[in-house]
Amino acid sequence: MSTAGFAVKGTKRAKARDALIPKQYWVAEKDLPPADQKSVVGLLSPLLTKKEIEIVSILDVTALLEKIHSRQLTSVEVLEAYVKQTIFTQQLVRVLTETMIPEAFENAKALDKILAETGKPVGPLHGLPISLKDQFHIKGYELNIGYVSRIGTVSDRHCTLVDLLVKAGAVYYVRTNLPQNIMRGEVDNFVYGLTTNPSNRDLTPGGSTGGEGALLAMHGSPLGVGTDIGGSVRIPAAFCGIWSLRPSYHRVPYQWAANSMLGQEAVPSVIGPMSSSYTGLVEFMKAIAAQEPWLYDPIVLEKPWNETAFETPQKKGKLSFAMMWDDGVTRVHPPITRAEKAVVAALTAAGHEVIDWSPVDHVEGTSILDVVYKADGGKDIADECAASGEPILPGLGEGASKHLTVWEAWQLNKRRDAYRKTYLDAWNASAAKTSSGRPVDAIISPVAPFVAAVLTENDNLDYTSIWNLLDYPCVVFPTGLRVDPKIDTGKVGGEPIPGTRDKTNADRWEEHGAVGYENAPIGLQVVGRRGREEEILGIAKVLGQAIKQI
Amino acid sequence: MSTAGFAVKGTKRAKARDALIPKQYWVAEKDLPPADQKSVVGLLSPLLTKKEIEIVSILDVTALLEKIHSRQLTSVEVLEAYVKQTIFTQQLVRVLTETMIPEAFENAKALDKILAETGKPVGPLHGLPISLKDQFHIKGYELNIGYVSRIGTVSDRHCTLVDLLVKAGAVYYVRTNLPQNIMRGEVDNFVYGLTTNPSNRDLTPGGSTGGEGALLAMHGSPLGVGTDIGGSVRIPAAFCGIWSLRPSYHRVPYQWAANSMLGQEAVPSVIGPMSSSYTGLVEFMKAIAAQEPWLYDPIVLEKPWNETAFETPQKKGKLSFAMMWDDGVTRVHPPITRAEKAVVAALTAAGHEVIDWSPVDHVEGTSILDVVYKADGGKDIADECAASGEPILPGLGEGASKHLTVWEAWQLNKRRDAYRKTYLDAWNASAAKTSSGRPVDAIISPVAPFVAAVLTENDNLDYTSIWNLLDYPCVVFPTGLRVDPKIDTGKVGGEPIPGTRDKTNADRWEEHGAVGYENAPIGLQVVGRRGREEEILGIAKVLGQAIKQI
Repeated sequence: MSTAGFAVKGTKRAKARDALIPKQYWVAEKDLPPADQKSVVGLLSPLLTKKEIEIVSILDVTALLEKIHSRQLTSVEVLEAYVKQTIFTQQLVRVLTETMIPEAFENAKALDKILAETGKPVGPLHGLPISLKDQFHIKGYELNIGYVSRIGTVSDRHCTLVDLLVKAGAVYYVRTNLPQNIMRGEVDNFVYGLTTNPSNRDLTPGGSTGGEGALLAMHGSPLGVGTDIGGSVRIPAAFCGIWSLRPSYHRVPYQWAANSMLGQEAVPSVIGPMSSSYTGLVEFMKAIAAQEPWLYDPIVLEKPWNETAFETPQKKGKLSFAMMWDDGVTRVHPPITRAEKAVVAALTAAGHEVIDWSPVDHVEGTSILDVVYKADGGKDIADECAASGEPILPGLGEGASKHLTVWEAWQLNKRRDAYRKTYLDAWNASAAKTSSGRPVDAIISPVAPFVAAVLTENDNLDYTSIWNLLDYPCVVFPTGLRVDPKIDTGKVGGEPIPGTRDKTNADRWEEHGAVGYENAPIGLQVVGRRGREEEILGIAKVLGQAIKQI
Repeated sequence: MSTAGFAVKGTKRAKARDALIPKQYWVAEKDLPPADQKSVVGLLSPLLTKKEIEIVSILDVTALLEKIHSRQLTSVEVLEAYVKQTIFTQQLVRVLTETMIPEAFENAKALDKILAETGKPVGPLHGLPISLKDQFHIKGYELNIGYVSRIGTVSDRHCTLVDLLVKAGAVYYVRTNLPQNIMRGEVDNFVYGLTTNPSNRDLTPGGSTGGEGALLAMHGSPLGVGTDIGGSVRIPAAFCGIWSLRPSYHRVPYQWAANSMLGQEAVPSVIGPMSSSYTGLVEFMKAIAAQEPWLYDPIVLEKPWNETAFETPQKKGKLSFAMMWDDGVTRVHPPITRAEKAVVAALTAAGHEVIDWSPVDHVEGTSILDVVYKADGGKDIADECAASGEPILPGLGEGASKHLTVWEAWQLNKRRDAYRKTYLDAWNASAAKTSSGRPVDAIISPVAPFVAAVLTENDNLDYTSIWNLLDYPCVVFPTGLRVDPKIDTGKVGGEPIPGTRDKTNADRWEEHGAVGYENAPIGLQVVGRRGREEEILGIAKVLGQAIKQI
């Protein structure tokens, strides 16, 4: 790293972050795995007691909440366990941007006292430690979203999400790393540096919510919150082997959260939960809906939690899925295909139906997105970087379209809606292919044409961003499979697709082979109809049980 | 009118429209009221039979539907009555842009046949004639939204709304007039000319959906459909003395409808029903929701009709209203205040509570709207007018802000959302002022600071557009009162509000006096919380009953 002013400021800020972490949580250098050890997933902080090991091993958030609410565990002891494992994770893969550890213990203690005195949790997330991407303002703490220009900015209020999480009883304790501009599928910036993947430290954890992905995969947090405008809660979930939900627009309150390109609405960013357990997603969505966020954030739709919609797919018996083997633009690497086949086999064995999904002109969809994401001609990132002198990182700001006028943006909106219509019609038309005569319940799709990418190579977000454009809710699930050089010996299948990024992707598999991606978890996503978070969570539960991940 | 090319084309098109109307529906000149007779409201076509007079006098759409569905009336005879009264209305105040009369009779006949054979209506609006603003494409008919440049454009498909209305059993038969660019509170354009107000032909029927307003007030249609981006279904309803609903965004499908500024989403235009009866609004909304419009238009929110939300205010006993006497920017003319007082008295007498509403910085709200509506720097209207050479009418295209860049539009969106937040908080805070301790159920507000404006003087849409910015659903209701020179002898009350359009408005009352607005109906609007169409319709029913308009 250069010693330019921006770099000095970034380094200083990272040190200030470290200084806030109580010393007793740092693990001695000698007790850390060697720097060249690729996989660190599954390692536990040597500081954890036996009971604390049990705590961070409770992967079911509902079960953890029950233990806290029934006073089998205190919030303080749960927090202590997660803090220890978080700092250990930080030492291994660098996930943190800010910590609130002393305050978190105060808050946990207060919650324990209330529960002891009243016997009643203050809310559905009472006592649960929760980690947050570095976009969610917490009063009194610095938040800079990884921009050197924003170093030193202390938040004067909670964002609405944090307000509601506190109201629901959650205990915030750390915030996590993200890429410059929050518009990239990896995590690196000039303040907090690079985050790597616990399953293989030569790989990216994905982005933009990659700090969360890595932390959750290491069991450093039971429940995390990220944002997603093109795949940012899904790519890290898939690359790190955990669960996440991308809700539809305006379900979870974004008010007063920091972001790049604030005010951009053609394809809005959304907030979604990430967790090493499926139940973490459900608990988060139920808890937020129960706070009636539409009474706080005027943009949030008034949609109480719909238990019927959640339960219906679970009671339906036979569900109809459509498998999108690839997007018709970029063929997927062999481990993805292996996981897809395993999921189809498991679903079929469980009595469900899986038809093939024909992707609907994803070239058009992603071409629209290319313009949407850079409709300001790169002004947002250019201004932010110019303010400190930090350079724009590769993959960002390049190939920006011209800065559109409002009228040009209106034409783009029309083109986007025409695309949405073709997809809606295609989904409706799937009724002709199912045994029930009803449209498919969900589409299963890769999250990327590769598993966790080699660092700097995650330059294809097409498999996630298409669902942002369509505003379909998605649940990323771990298949339980990992890249194995003994098994993943094949080549990229099918015929090369000319005029696309397909060749680059196939070449990378040739170049790195399974060894290059060794131990990377293989995640997929299940995609529902617009606005149906409860339904897709219900479907994901059925699917997760069929593949024995729940 | 000049004989410029655009004017010649417009006149020719208007004649072509007339030529499509079967001759037997035109009333002889000698049987029309004199041209200088101001009020024509209540007049009936001399061609109507006694039974047809009974039909157009059924002001309750639910009752009319019941008579058709129970085969007490055929769709054909209902249509015949409305067609006669429509053409008579056209002769008096010029409301039409296009007619589909022969096809309408074919469709009505087919529906009658189905009902006779099966005993079952095809849908909830089976057999009901329905009139449409000139934005809704109907396959095979010319649609030009009053732009000379679009003359000769024949629609190659129905817009989604028309598809769903047909599916629900409605019978389209006419389309109605609107202003150039659809962005004005009056109705005039170079194709179909000026529409006037049946209650006083020196006044405007309001706009932009003024053709509907005038037609419905004359009982030329039982149910009409308009659009509203700044008051366009509400101003005509108030000015003409009928009912209308402005739903929240994305409830009623806009797909493939024509509009100016298509793709503009900062404050989207919405579609809403207009009717001389309250029940027309409910029947329309129930019928559209029942068609599951979200399966056809990807932008529509998946919200089935919520009968519980509709019934709750009706069962609540005591409701809490807040009266916004004026918007703090422009004082209202004396008849408006008189109507407000009458409504408060009636509600109070019926056991409801009415507190005062303090408008929340409407100057900021309408300043944001000034930029939103002209964010393209006037390009949309300039391009359309340039294409034919028609001039831009006064009040349109003037004072356009610069053509914004996308980045500038993002900043405007942020300002808009901050404003929305202040209003949301104010609504929540009203709980401190009600006897129930809950926030008010609804706000009652003027629709304009005047009743139906003298032609060319409707230059203040602030009282309606503010609710578009906030996305609050509104029901316009007739108070049953009209301007009466014997009663409305007062002056504009309160103190002049400096630095605003207040003085112009007060001066107009001085200039015209009650005589200038004689017989204009006085309507008000009742405003609900975002996304709650059912609730505001339920509240409007309670209110309408209290003031004896239902």
